[in-house]
Amino acid sequence: MSTVSQTALQSSYPPILPNSFNANQPQTIRLYPLSNYTFGTKETQPEEDPSVIARLNRLQEHYAQHGMRRTPGDYLRPEDEEVSGFKARLNERLAPIGSQFSSDRHEGEWQIADTLAQWWRPNFETFMYPYIPAHCTRPKECKKLYMIQLPRSKVLSVPKNMKLLAVPLFELYDNTQRYGPQLSAIPHLLSRYNFEFV
Amino acid sequence: MSTVSQTALQSSYPPILPNSFNANQPQTIRLYPLSNYTFGTKETQPEEDPSVIARLNRLQEHYAQHGMRRTPGDYLRPEDEEVSGFKARLNERLAPIGSQFSSDRHEGEWQIADTLAQWWRPNFETFMYPYIPAHCTRPKECKKLYMIQLPRSKVLSVPKNMKLLAVPLFELYDNTQRYGPQLSAIPHLLSRYNFEFV
Ligand SMILES: [Zn+2]
Ligand SMILES: [Zn+2]
Ligand SMILES: [Zn+2]
Ligand SMILES: [Zn+2]
Repeated sequence: MSTVSQTALQSSYPPILPNSFNANQPQTIRLYPLSNYTFGTKETQPEEDPSVIARLNRLQEHYAQHGMRRTPGDYLRPEDEEVSGFKARLNERLAPIGSQFSSDRHEGEWQIADTLAQWWRPNFETFMYPYIPAHCTRPKECKKLYMIQLPRSKVLSVPKNMKLLAVPLFELYDNTQRYGPQLSAIPHLLSRYNFEFV
Repeated sequence: MSTVSQTALQSSYPPILPNSFNANQPQTIRLYPLSNYTFGTKETQPEEDPSVIARLNRLQEHYAQHGMRRTPGDYLRPEDEEVSGFKARLNERLAPIGSQFSSDRHEGEWQIADTLAQWWRPNFETFMYPYIPAHCTRPKECKKLYMIQLPRSKVLSVPKNMKLLAVPLFELYDNTQRYGPQLSAIPHLLSRYNFEFV
């Protein structure tokens, strides 16, 4: 519940602790210090679509051929299995060149954990909803957000034309103007977890 | 994924279905028709606090004596175990008089499922956050929201001075003005579930 462990507690007036209050919650998420991660850069990668219209046209073509688009993070290929396909997309974006196929398979691998949210696109339009709107039987796209448990340490390589940002929860919270409806909802989606900082 | 089952599908142009897209999701939630539930009324129950100030004063007294207040839905008593205490509060509010102690224990019992959110009150003030704000080591209250799986059928009795409302997700969504930050976030919190209507 508290982020301060019993041994780190400095006060000589320790708080009165209520009865246990952890029922039906997911496992506590362990967070490692930022210094455990190494950041590098790699070659520029093509950006997806030059405009909103180009993006919606591409979606329309995809839908006609493959049905609803599945987008965990970046786009899954129609033939991809969900979790392995998502790991492949994460590696394309963030793994150092060459390392995604290294023999050292488990050290530093992405752990794709719980689904946090699903966003539905009912039409070939920009609006998405966190539910399937009434009368929508054929959503055009479903975008899923997952919890990714970072390993204890990891090397991350970011394409030169892109940026990797660490955004604190209080900055995202209640800030749809700046981050849009999907990112600004992340504090809500994470609020059922307890975190421990090691 | 879709709310239309294969057999109920009317179209002779069935949609192209993408590869499976259900990884790391909770169990599908079954929803029963409203006609399975019976609604009645019972005697008036005292409303908690006449004013915001009275409520915050009561919280302050509680904190001094018992530590952080735990509020799943309504207030848990300090000695209550979390889930059984929450069921007792739900019964006080919604079970027909007498039935909460009936021998017929399992038929129609509340099923307290996943924690959906935690809201933290850092000070004796009205603001709550879906995370523990930085530098807050002694939150004054933690309010948890659970998924309650309704049984196939149930009799609900509502105190005469209160109202039980069924609010559709699209009405809550993006409607902080009307429903406040906690209720309007419910569509986000439920978006990782798939629902089936029977
Ligand atoms: Zn395609
Ligand atoms: Zn929102
Ligand atoms: Zn008390
Ligand atoms: Zn919100």
